[in-house]
Amino acid sequence: MLLFDSNLSIPSLKKLKEELKPDVLIPFNASEKNKSLAAVQNIVSAAALSGADRQSVLINAGGGTLCDTGAFAASVFKRGIDFINLPTTLMAQCDAALGGKTALNQAGIKNIIGTYHFPSAVLIEPGLLKSLDTRNLISGFAEIIKTAIIADKKLFRQLSDTDISPNEFSRFAWKAAQLKLKIVNKDPYDKGARQSLNFGHTIGHAMESFFMNDVSALLHGEAVAFGMVAETFIAFQKNLVSIKELNAVADLIQRHFNLPVLPESAFEQIIHFMSFDKKNYSGQLIFSLPFGIGSCLLKQTASRDAVISALHFANFVFQHNQ
Amino acid sequence: MLLFDSNLSIPSLKKLKEELKPDVLIPFNASEKNKSLAAVQNIVSAAALSGADRQSVLINAGGGTLCDTGAFAASVFKRGIDFINLPTTLMAQCDAALGGKTALNQAGIKNIIGTYHFPSAVLIEPGLLKSLDTRNLISGFAEIIKTAIIADKKLFRQLSDTDISPNEFSRFAWKAAQLKLKIVNKDPYDKGARQSLNFGHTIGHAMESFFMNDVSALLHGEAVAFGMVAETFIAFQKNLVSIKELNAVADLIQRHFNLPVLPESAFEQIIHFMSFDKKNYSGQLIFSLPFGIGSCLLKQTASRDAVISALHFANFVFQHNQ
Repeated sequence: MLLFDSNLSIPSLKKLKEELKPDVLIPFNASEKNKSLAAVQNIVSAAALSGADRQSVLINAGGGTLCDTGAFAASVFKRGIDFINLPTTLMAQCDAALGGKTALNQAGIKNIIGTYHFPSAVLIEPGLLKSLDTRNLISGFAEIIKTAIIADKKLFRQLSDTDISPNEFSRFAWKAAQLKLKIVNKDPYDKGARQSLNFGHTIGHAMESFFMNDVSALLHGEAVAFGMVAETFIAFQKNLVSIKELNAVADLIQRHFNLPVLPESAFEQIIHFMSFDKKNYSGQLIFSLPFGIGSCLLKQTASRDAVISALHFANFVFQHNQ
Repeated sequence: MLLFDSNLSIPSLKKLKEELKPDVLIPFNASEKNKSLAAVQNIVSAAALSGADRQSVLINAGGGTLCDTGAFAASVFKRGIDFINLPTTLMAQCDAALGGKTALNQAGIKNIIGTYHFPSAVLIEPGLLKSLDTRNLISGFAEIIKTAIIADKKLFRQLSDTDISPNEFSRFAWKAAQLKLKIVNKDPYDKGARQSLNFGHTIGHAMESFFMNDVSALLHGEAVAFGMVAETFIAFQKNLVSIKELNAVADLIQRHFNLPVLPESAFEQIIHFMSFDKKNYSGQLIFSLPFGIGSCLLKQTASRDAVISALHFANFVFQHNQ
């Protein structure tokens, strides 16, 4: 069975059909709004009515939202069938399609539903990125930057030193994917080390929830880029990174991302959405924060005031771009 | 958080509230139709908006459909939180609430969606069955009979010899629960031995799918009772049980269950619904069949004709009751 992004070009789809010869084709209108249980109903119904059994395999051909949704559907259809990811965006190739976390949105809250279900294979095919637009390439670059900040100082220097253009980003995808899988293998079920991959996402997911009904207002990587700048400021406030390191992170991200300024009137709602973060416990906001460049501290708390200062700082950084 | 059957009596609900002191109450209108992803959306939204975190625990107080749905919701909320089952029917106490298989219906197909998520505890409280009506007591008895046929010849004799009335059924619940858990512990993820618990359910689930929109036309145990008679006939056709054993099974079930005759015009649709059974592979119908009384053979095939003869036989058995 092939779950495919209905925005894929006809030639790409034709190629997939010829090469994979799927018995069933299931279209998916990929968007954060459709990363939902309602979409899972469609996928399950299509799979069931096509006669799929537990030996059937679902191939997910698309970006992060498609891979997240398809993987969830595979994890619950007949209590779990195998699936293969064929990511078609840089974001999915270096992050979303890897690691076995499935995710759906519900009640306007990003990734509040999910399972662990590990792909049988992930096919990283750089050729698939040829038709990807610049904005989506930059969005995917956010996860490469994130991986460098939490796990690889040398990679961070490479990303910072070079004057890299978006069509060169994909050459770092493989490295970022390897670093991610190393962390996932250490802690597949997110009890500890894996939470480092969530750096930038506490605020990033809240931003995505805030913008969810505003179609394509913010791509995942853009939200994470904003979140990384803000969360590195929190790390700075807690003396986990130096002012030099904070500036290095802000500079690198600001150079590539052209983001809207977050209206101050939205700060309260962003903090409200942060209260749904899966890492939280005992009513506290919990962060994974950089500890210098190249390592990460888990289960870090921050006060409301610290978060508000951080949102102001990120706004300040991106205002510079306008 | 307490997920409760909205048909529970006010005094029962009051007692649950006093004893469990849940911070959040989530009502559920228990029925096969509501054992759905739509119901899971309600539960997840209620949990999220109440501020539940990964340390929160969901208590499921109700029958099989409620436990199945609540357990699924617990398995996907924030990628899994703990849950406790407090089954209020005999069916749930001796079967549905135990073993960690969660299940939802979709596209009119019974249990096509599910996860494995094991309860932290299952509280078997016989007092909760006091207000249970006779029809539901008899329905639960089906799973006790099933467990005896596949795993305990001595129990089968006890169930057959004694002239037991429905209000005595619950004294066998504990024994059936223990037998089930022994099988589940051997094979939690349903790769082999656990499939024996599916005896009677290949045809039983198809009957439930067939009657799904006909509210309370058939309780789960009633469908399984019909399924067990039919599937024992298939076992007889395959020389797995003797005519004496077939009659012993049919007699015991016919004595307790007053079931409608299945119109012959429905046979094709029943076989169609059987084609969605989770045990099937390579387009073949697969059964777990008794091998004598007290043991079970897995991955048994049967032809369409064998199934049709079996449905005729079951009709014949229950016609005798009219």
